[in-house]
Amino acid sequence: MPIFFVKKAEMYKAIDHQDVARFIEMIGGSNVFIDKEYLREYGSDQTEDLVFPPHVVLKPESTSHVQDILKHCYESNICVTPIGARTGLSGGALSVYGGVGLSLERLNKILKIDTDNLQVVVEPGVITQVLQEEVEKQGLYYPPDPSSRGSCFIGGNLAENAGGPHAVKYGVTKDFVLNMEVVLANGEVINTGANTLKNSTGYNLTQLMVGSEGTLGVITKATLKLIPKPATNVLMLVPFRSAEKACEAVSAIFREGITPSALEFMERDAIDWTLQYVQDVQLPIDQEIQAHLLIEVDGNHMDSILADCEVIHEVVSRFDAGEVLFADDQQKKDQLWKLRRKVGEAVKSNSVYKEEDTVVPRFKLPELLKEVKRIGASYGFQSVCYGHAGDGNLHVNIIKGELTDTVWQEKLPLAIREIFVATKNMGGTLSGEHGIGLVQKEYMDIVFTPFELELMKGIKATFDPKGILNPGKIIPDNQGFMP
Amino acid sequence: MPIFFVKKAEMYKAIDHQDVARFIEMIGGSNVFIDKEYLREYGSDQTEDLVFPPHVVLKPESTSHVQDILKHCYESNICVTPIGARTGLSGGALSVYGGVGLSLERLNKILKIDTDNLQVVVEPGVITQVLQEEVEKQGLYYPPDPSSRGSCFIGGNLAENAGGPHAVKYGVTKDFVLNMEVVLANGEVINTGANTLKNSTGYNLTQLMVGSEGTLGVITKATLKLIPKPATNVLMLVPFRSAEKACEAVSAIFREGITPSALEFMERDAIDWTLQYVQDVQLPIDQEIQAHLLIEVDGNHMDSILADCEVIHEVVSRFDAGEVLFADDQQKKDQLWKLRRKVGEAVKSNSVYKEEDTVVPRFKLPELLKEVKRIGASYGFQSVCYGHAGDGNLHVNIIKGELTDTVWQEKLPLAIREIFVATKNMGGTLSGEHGIGLVQKEYMDIVFTPFELELMKGIKATFDPKGILNPGKIIPDNQGFMP
Repeated sequence: MPIFFVKKAEMYKAIDHQDVARFIEMIGGSNVFIDKEYLREYGSDQTEDLVFPPHVVLKPESTSHVQDILKHCYESNICVTPIGARTGLSGGALSVYGGVGLSLERLNKILKIDTDNLQVVVEPGVITQVLQEEVEKQGLYYPPDPSSRGSCFIGGNLAENAGGPHAVKYGVTKDFVLNMEVVLANGEVINTGANTLKNSTGYNLTQLMVGSEGTLGVITKATLKLIPKPATNVLMLVPFRSAEKACEAVSAIFREGITPSALEFMERDAIDWTLQYVQDVQLPIDQEIQAHLLIEVDGNHMDSILADCEVIHEVVSRFDAGEVLFADDQQKKDQLWKLRRKVGEAVKSNSVYKEEDTVVPRFKLPELLKEVKRIGASYGFQSVCYGHAGDGNLHVNIIKGELTDTVWQEKLPLAIREIFVATKNMGGTLSGEHGIGLVQKEYMDIVFTPFELELMKGIKATFDPKGILNPGKIIPDNQGFMP
Repeated sequence: MPIFFVKKAEMYKAIDHQDVARFIEMIGGSNVFIDKEYLREYGSDQTEDLVFPPHVVLKPESTSHVQDILKHCYESNICVTPIGARTGLSGGALSVYGGVGLSLERLNKILKIDTDNLQVVVEPGVITQVLQEEVEKQGLYYPPDPSSRGSCFIGGNLAENAGGPHAVKYGVTKDFVLNMEVVLANGEVINTGANTLKNSTGYNLTQLMVGSEGTLGVITKATLKLIPKPATNVLMLVPFRSAEKACEAVSAIFREGITPSALEFMERDAIDWTLQYVQDVQLPIDQEIQAHLLIEVDGNHMDSILADCEVIHEVVSRFDAGEVLFADDQQKKDQLWKLRRKVGEAVKSNSVYKEEDTVVPRFKLPELLKEVKRIGASYGFQSVCYGHAGDGNLHVNIIKGELTDTVWQEKLPLAIREIFVATKNMGGTLSGEHGIGLVQKEYMDIVFTPFELELMKGIKATFDPKGILNPGKIIPDNQGFMP
């Protein structure tokens, strides 16, 4: 194994006027930004209150723009951070060492909706919901739908391997990508695979690139799989007197042979805070209710769906559920989904917080919730938990509230480490769909051995030998990333 | 990029008596085999008539056995070829440079069927059908089912990313593996992921390992995802007067919003040869019939299934289908499936042949079939085509028949190259589910650029810097695989 060391900001070339002039020459002045306020804006995403501005923001309009930029940066040893819609929750798009902030927002075309093969070819800057709505016009469906789908980019979804409520039945982003065009650090363009549903041809570069958080290459095009849009669905909100019992009901539903198209969990606080935040949704909730499951069943035949719903109804009643609310028209469905999708924003508006994206085997969910609360109590932290229960993916939002900065900065990492160790011991891991990025990397040693991390660094060095792409992400600082 | 060169047999240490004595010491005499006939047997799989015997066959009984063997081989520079059930069709398990043939057949336990989390932990030597039958007893389902499922191992399925008829609805092997324990070339053990349905934690080592054909590590344990077993299904056999029209009907079915659980294509010759071969299946077929589709629809509700079947019936009638045969009891279903599963063996029993595992976007299937026939005609080759039409995955069996050895050896590679170039031009690639192994590697330049192949070699060098694991596979000979 080669010896790796940490590369720091001072080891990259600082951007000077000549570089900026070169960039303007390459991609045009209207695509180059150096205004301080602007840089600051591009130095933040949705991760806590972190700000790491790049020294210049570039907005390429083509693959060859991206190639030219990377060639120059590679030769000059300038670091480059790919930037999407800045909706990420792990700091993956933050320019922690400055350099070039490479925004993909102007590569925003849906290049082809292939209704013959049920595929779509997109550029990375396409908004996920826009893609979904466009393919829906053709009766097709692209299921991955993170809560931020109204603003996030497909490119970011690919980089972080984003999920969302419908992953439980249909899979996450990785399950829908067939092929990608990627520009590597040195400016070379590769295609990771083929536009086929099956592929056993060499190492799976497609799946290696998905979820690599912009550290292995810059995605400039993706061929995604589509499926026929299910004709209809039923959505129900199930209240529980015990949050743990709600979690227990989750695996019992699957055990009955049913795979809901969504199976979401929300703690009482999550729903209360969100009702306050969104205001236009009314939902009377009994005092004794501690949690809700939001359950959707979809399909082409309403009678089958209703038969499944009956079974679900029977299952949840075994776990002391309250009265089930069926959303019986589109408006009510939209309201319930809005409630669920806005939880993150609601928590954020309420207090400084830190969100962990814990994931465990589904049946361990009640145990995970209990552990989170136990650890929180022992450190004096309040947490609000919600997420994709059907996938065992629990978003743990730790609330700063009245805690002092010292407690927040010194004790919190210890508490988080305890949560992740518990998660790992249940067969789980650090992130289900947000990625590791900047803010979780120091916990990687919990789930990977030093040798496993060495393998990841070896892969990184193969794709980006100089380490210019998105430095300071995924690999813990004390492990470095450079040969 | 480092400079790579080809490693040849003479560059590995030959196995001597001392090595054999060490192996006996490590794993016991009853697990070490040096009999010539035995070695010959372990030097062949189901790929054509190829035989490449190892110099010793080792049958480890535990992960630590595998570690000890690999440590010794790594230190001594002895090459090692992992061997499963030897049902492979790309020569992936052939010991082309001799060395150790590492048979995983004694690591054959199902370690845990986790009915709470719908997961199973298996050793690599478990027969796929055995796994399927065991989990079915718990109402669970492991869908990937290559035709050889009665004898192939899960380990080989993972190594080659095997598919099968049900991939069209449920996915291939890669879509069901959550985590693996893998011994690397130097004897280190890694876990590739976590036992979770979602995972965005570092590079996806799991998906990199699946389909890497034993060149990156030896899989010693795998955690696989299970799903609830669908309650019932309907199976129908649809005859067509035109093979191309049969292929055209395939994408039309999906376009109607239906995803069958299997959608298989068989040319007339395939079915005729198989009827002759299996003998105990009777099926009167009209003279004019040129091809069949075997279509299965599964689900939990028979009325929904029948509604889908009606739509399918309507679709195929648009493509000049003959009278649809519904298999109305389990025996008839078994017979039709036997017919489909035995095509490969039937072709093999008929003549020396060469099988290509072409895959294209689904809608391109009729065009692919036409091209295969055109190229065959221009070179004077007969071909028998069948396969997983719903996935665009067509097995092209080129028949030697009366052709001379010279024509077979000199002209055939040119014809195959033409077929693959056509496949690539349709957005397809070399292999949908058989892997590249030994026999397709010289075509890799058609679908990957030299730079893309360099990346694969870089990954190989990261995992196996000395290149002892399964040498001579995947990467073309003129590209080498060693740093």
